[in-house]
Amino acid sequence: MTMLEIIEKKKLGKELTKEEITFFAKAAAEKTVPDYQLSALLMAIRLNGMSYQETTDLTLAMRDSGDIADLSGIPGIKVDKHSTGGVGDTTTLVLAPLVAACGAPVAKMSGRGLGHTGGTLDKLESIPGMKVTLSEEDFIRQVKEIGVAVIGQTGHLAPADKTLYALRDVTSTVDSLPLIVSSILSKKLAAGSDAIVLDVKNGSGAIMHTEEESIMLARTMVEVGTLAGKPVVAVVTGMDQPLGTHVGNALEVKEAIDILSGRAGGDLLEVSLTLGGYMLKLAGKAESPEAGKAMMAEAVRSGAGLKKLKEMIAAQGGDSAVCDDVTRLPQAKVQRSVTCGKAGYVQKMDTMALGLAAQAMGAGRLKVDDELDYSVGFVLNVRIGDRVEEDTPLCTLHARSEEDAVKAEAAVRAAITIGEEACGRAPDFYAIVTKDGIWKLGATE
Amino acid sequence: MTMLEIIEKKKLGKELTKEEITFFAKAAAEKTVPDYQLSALLMAIRLNGMSYQETTDLTLAMRDSGDIADLSGIPGIKVDKHSTGGVGDTTTLVLAPLVAACGAPVAKMSGRGLGHTGGTLDKLESIPGMKVTLSEEDFIRQVKEIGVAVIGQTGHLAPADKTLYALRDVTSTVDSLPLIVSSILSKKLAAGSDAIVLDVKNGSGAIMHTEEESIMLARTMVEVGTLAGKPVVAVVTGMDQPLGTHVGNALEVKEAIDILSGRAGGDLLEVSLTLGGYMLKLAGKAESPEAGKAMMAEAVRSGAGLKKLKEMIAAQGGDSAVCDDVTRLPQAKVQRSVTCGKAGYVQKMDTMALGLAAQAMGAGRLKVDDELDYSVGFVLNVRIGDRVEEDTPLCTLHARSEEDAVKAEAAVRAAITIGEEACGRAPDFYAIVTKDGIWKLGATE
Repeated sequence: MTMLEIIEKKKLGKELTKEEITFFAKAAAEKTVPDYQLSALLMAIRLNGMSYQETTDLTLAMRDSGDIADLSGIPGIKVDKHSTGGVGDTTTLVLAPLVAACGAPVAKMSGRGLGHTGGTLDKLESIPGMKVTLSEEDFIRQVKEIGVAVIGQTGHLAPADKTLYALRDVTSTVDSLPLIVSSILSKKLAAGSDAIVLDVKNGSGAIMHTEEESIMLARTMVEVGTLAGKPVVAVVTGMDQPLGTHVGNALEVKEAIDILSGRAGGDLLEVSLTLGGYMLKLAGKAESPEAGKAMMAEAVRSGAGLKKLKEMIAAQGGDSAVCDDVTRLPQAKVQRSVTCGKAGYVQKMDTMALGLAAQAMGAGRLKVDDELDYSVGFVLNVRIGDRVEEDTPLCTLHARSEEDAVKAEAAVRAAITIGEEACGRAPDFYAIVTKDGIWKLGATE
Repeated sequence: MTMLEIIEKKKLGKELTKEEITFFAKAAAEKTVPDYQLSALLMAIRLNGMSYQETTDLTLAMRDSGDIADLSGIPGIKVDKHSTGGVGDTTTLVLAPLVAACGAPVAKMSGRGLGHTGGTLDKLESIPGMKVTLSEEDFIRQVKEIGVAVIGQTGHLAPADKTLYALRDVTSTVDSLPLIVSSILSKKLAAGSDAIVLDVKNGSGAIMHTEEESIMLARTMVEVGTLAGKPVVAVVTGMDQPLGTHVGNALEVKEAIDILSGRAGGDLLEVSLTLGGYMLKLAGKAESPEAGKAMMAEAVRSGAGLKKLKEMIAAQGGDSAVCDDVTRLPQAKVQRSVTCGKAGYVQKMDTMALGLAAQAMGAGRLKVDDELDYSVGFVLNVRIGDRVEEDTPLCTLHARSEEDAVKAEAAVRAAITIGEEACGRAPDFYAIVTKDGIWKLGATE
């Protein structure tokens, strides 16, 4: 078997065998074949596709290319949650404490932000003192003791994906369903999950821009998860506008605390409760996703979720007093409100542009080694479908300088379309995909 | 403009602009973009294709990526001939002297053999003393003086093709019409031709295995040549069996001399006369291809072609006495005849396997820097369609050792199918393609 034969076969649109897929995944991890052959194969996969079985074989081969976390020391079913990435998407900080408070262990490895989307690790690090690097031993101990830990990747997980992902980024092969699915699932399986709830974002700030594409991605995830022997449920959620109202690291932590304190609600709460409901169902802690959702809501009402977040922050060295006083979080120098400047209806948001505006303010990285300013970002006061007047507040900017605020104001204004015609609200949920089928929702629940 | 944007566009099946194509051809020549991006683009081109206009833009950009030979010092229209490569394909050595004898200048740059196909330069070098490296000045002087020169490439022609060809070879993107056509034509145009006759081989020893594919290749060549402003005629000829009866470097020179001496005929003569007829027409020396073919035949009969070959060999330092005494060419130690061993009809030949058998004997290279044994090879005594008896001679082996002869005998036998059912002869010509249309022939003329 040679790499050239494998490229030839996929070029001709044939199905690769498990042995062939394992051969190139191993070669990618160990860098024993040249990049130009890997990239030719990636383009052939992008254009000729892969079957569910091939995608599963690739997922498992990439999982097996490095370390696999052993979470067997933690009793119970470990359900992980993964989002394909969005703006103002703070679901992990809301649902992880709630799910833990409802009795299901949450041993979560998260990532950093890149491009227009934020990352959970960056948000956590905006809490003074908070550590996100734990040894596997300490990670497991913390989950056993308090039921929840959210940290960065431990060990050398899925190195094949690392090589392939870097190449996809520079060869225009990111937008390939089998490559997206195997990349996400291989890392989740290597992180030791027993079951996975996937949050597939759809809309102007998401990897997939149409409902049809998002459902295809969700379906592929579920099919491949099932073939790999892991229960997967995928929820296609709206990213037509930022999920939460807050965009920026410390601001998003504040919003999560506001929600867990019962002071705030909205789409972020709704999506978090639904995803958590599925997690509780898969963990065997709830009879149904609906029952799980009700348990989640109760954990907000009782304050059990907020208490769990406090415990987690304290366990990871952070200042848990932020949960009682959000002003202890980093505060931006310049804070000012901006009005709509125009009467009408909020018709549309370019969510990716909003993410990039926050990135430009210092909330995100342009390069991997850029330093973040945790305090900056903005809080939106409007949602799609809102009727606004000229003097209705549009957003509050949190900027490093007056100059940055001026630029951010222009960027936010340009990304939000206010027009004369009334329009409906943007849906929170588009579809739910399980191994039993696809349920299209297409409207706010 | 970035390489990533160009890859993205071709991935989506869009047509690239002249500027985009020039950008990546220049980058390939100067090696300013990484190989993994070039190979991703090559695979996208292989799978999504290129229009005639894109292929023309690529051809011209590759031509312009290096030196361009200036043959304006040679009076008359310089017509080049190119073969897509075959076995026992000695047309250049037959037709170049004949065309020159008929008054059209032949200033030809040829290549070396690689893989199962032979190369004109290697064949010429089997003539004792023969030089194939001339300065551009000496090359032009020789053509002006005697009307013909066949040498290796001078200067730094089409370096973009060099980079891309090396990558195609290791990324399974050789079999792409736009990439084949731009590779061939860019080099021919850089070599200074005014017009080109293409010999597109079809069959078991050719780059294209079916008539349909070969005609597609011929048609693309002609369309692109026309868009590039150079007259191109393509003749699709048979490679279902070796074109000549002789396979091996000195053996093929011997066959060319035998033909020019009027001692031998057959398919090699027929194809050479036809291709030469088109060359004379394009050079303005004949009213029609048919008239040109008749002029070629007359130059064989009169001995003018053989005389021209002698002059060329002498001018390039070779022993021109080989033309009168072919035993002055290198002779193999072991020479022996092999019989068919079976009665029946010669139904089929695996021509590529025959080429590889000669290569294994030492006639061809396994690696670019392998040294050749000019004396080795074999002479076939049968053609497809022949009725043979058990003791009919199959071939004469010319080998370095008895051991090599044994291996070669087995390989030649395995490549030639003798069966009970009678079958027709293999066609010499499949089609002729000019800018005015496609004429399918599909049978021996």
